[in-house]
Amino acid sequence: MPQDFPDRLAATVTRTHSRVCVGLDPAIDRVWRALGRRGGVPVDAAEAAAAIWEFNQYILEAVAPYCGIIKPQSAFYEIWGPAGLEALCKTVQRAREMDYICILDVKRNDIGSSSTAYAQAYLGESSLSADAITVNPYLGTDGITPFLNEARRRKRGLFVLVKTSNPSSAELQDLRLADGRLLHEAVADLVAGWGQSGVGACGYSDVGAVVGATFPRELAALRKRLPHTWFLVPGYGTQGGTAEDVALAFDEERLGAIVNSSSGIIFAGLKTTISHFALAAAEAACEMRDRIETALEARRS
Amino acid sequence: MPQDFPDRLAATVTRTHSRVCVGLDPAIDRVWRALGRRGGVPVDAAEAAAAIWEFNQYILEAVAPYCGIIKPQSAFYEIWGPAGLEALCKTVQRAREMDYICILDVKRNDIGSSSTAYAQAYLGESSLSADAITVNPYLGTDGITPFLNEARRRKRGLFVLVKTSNPSSAELQDLRLADGRLLHEAVADLVAGWGQSGVGACGYSDVGAVVGATFPRELAALRKRLPHTWFLVPGYGTQGGTAEDVALAFDEERLGAIVNSSSGIIFAGLKTTISHFALAAAEAACEMRDRIETALEARRS
Repeated sequence: MPQDFPDRLAATVTRTHSRVCVGLDPAIDRVWRALGRRGGVPVDAAEAAAAIWEFNQYILEAVAPYCGIIKPQSAFYEIWGPAGLEALCKTVQRAREMDYICILDVKRNDIGSSSTAYAQAYLGESSLSADAITVNPYLGTDGITPFLNEARRRKRGLFVLVKTSNPSSAELQDLRLADGRLLHEAVADLVAGWGQSGVGACGYSDVGAVVGATFPRELAALRKRLPHTWFLVPGYGTQGGTAEDVALAFDEERLGAIVNSSSGIIFAGLKTTISHFALAAAEAACEMRDRIETALEARRS
Repeated sequence: MPQDFPDRLAATVTRTHSRVCVGLDPAIDRVWRALGRRGGVPVDAAEAAAAIWEFNQYILEAVAPYCGIIKPQSAFYEIWGPAGLEALCKTVQRAREMDYICILDVKRNDIGSSSTAYAQAYLGESSLSADAITVNPYLGTDGITPFLNEARRRKRGLFVLVKTSNPSSAELQDLRLADGRLLHEAVADLVAGWGQSGVGACGYSDVGAVVGATFPRELAALRKRLPHTWFLVPGYGTQGGTAEDVALAFDEERLGAIVNSSSGIIFAGLKTTISHFALAAAEAACEMRDRIETALEARRS
């Protein structure tokens, strides 16, 4: 009997001693340079998809000692059409074979039978099925329910966008409501409700929240507001979030959050003299893990 | 020199005398029945994708006399992985060859390089490139800008979710803000701003809004609030919206909106004794066109 998603996530964090999630966002120009290919960046979908799959295999091998969670960003695969989706399938399957928790960053949202079809595509029995996916809350409960039903049937999870890491996230997400809450707080309250009946032994539920590292005050407030919600925290590194910022996302047991870095890890090799891009990625993942652990240690003492 | 998207949409409506958009949401169980296949619904992706492509070709031929706009719902293709995406590619390409305006319903949303990759995938030079796509506004302006840039570069369009047709849409979209507006009105105001510099000769811009037929009061209010915004109106038929409801989406020249129906048209054959599902779809599209024209005529007089 496999564990429920929130407990599997907790077990992975405990086993790897790492709260790092590596984002697999294989922008082709940088993949091409990392692989040391000559000539122009490919425009042919099959060639690009093959390069991405080769690149991802290196990264999956390289960062395994330092993290147990990976997050492919679907856009970088969809841009290559069916061939790109094939590379995504292989990446998801390889990651799961290697015992990674695989979170597919698709930010899907729809209603009724469309939502059900997306849920089956990314959480069901398909070749693209991941351990969890990201979803957008704008359509409300009946946009989420089909995803939640499929997640629960298959012991998988969701991460709902609550407070994203981009500068414009304030535009809608920080609007003040007549009842005094901010919009992202209203979304957070919905997330808590959606997860209520999915709390695992670890104390966290199967409906997580995406909360950016770039807004530390909101991150700390949401941590208090959502005591049973796993946070997926983007915005570390390249976007400006520090280890001290992301430390605010964790509970006193150092659980409750995972921190994503994409280009800061997978393309670390483009900025150093380390001989192979995968070695540089491994070093970057190791350094990120250690920084976060140090920041959590400092908070404790 | 091709026309800008808003003017092409206006020209298509004028040429076809139809404000109908046919949603290509090929749920496999119903596609299978419509095609008269025996035996169980396929679970093999290649077999399912082939059936969907065959079905779509019939529908594209059948409804052409009664509408000039089609809207594939991406979820029903993505569920079949790379093979499904291949069927979607062929559908989009065939639709464009047949001079349909093709709106790809993907409801994508992301930031930075991910958003740019989605924009290139669905509005760029790829095999999946459509005339317009649907997008979700929750991330704010910097989630929309990469889509808008690509749309303008390629004379294509966006439809932003504003007030969706599902019952739970009220949960977030109708929240009252401290400044007195409803959340969907705040989104509408952003949409107006995003479209401001993209208004075509027809008086409408390249940034449209998705506004459901199931909330006629909000639809009428949004029509007044957004005088330069094309509306894509879902919720007609199966979801309960009537021709009188959707008439509220149009201006006095009967422009400014297109009305989508998916299963009510493409699966009309499953409910009648008409010999072929494509004939039934044609009849349903014709009837929907006529009902809307009659409702618009009645409002005028």
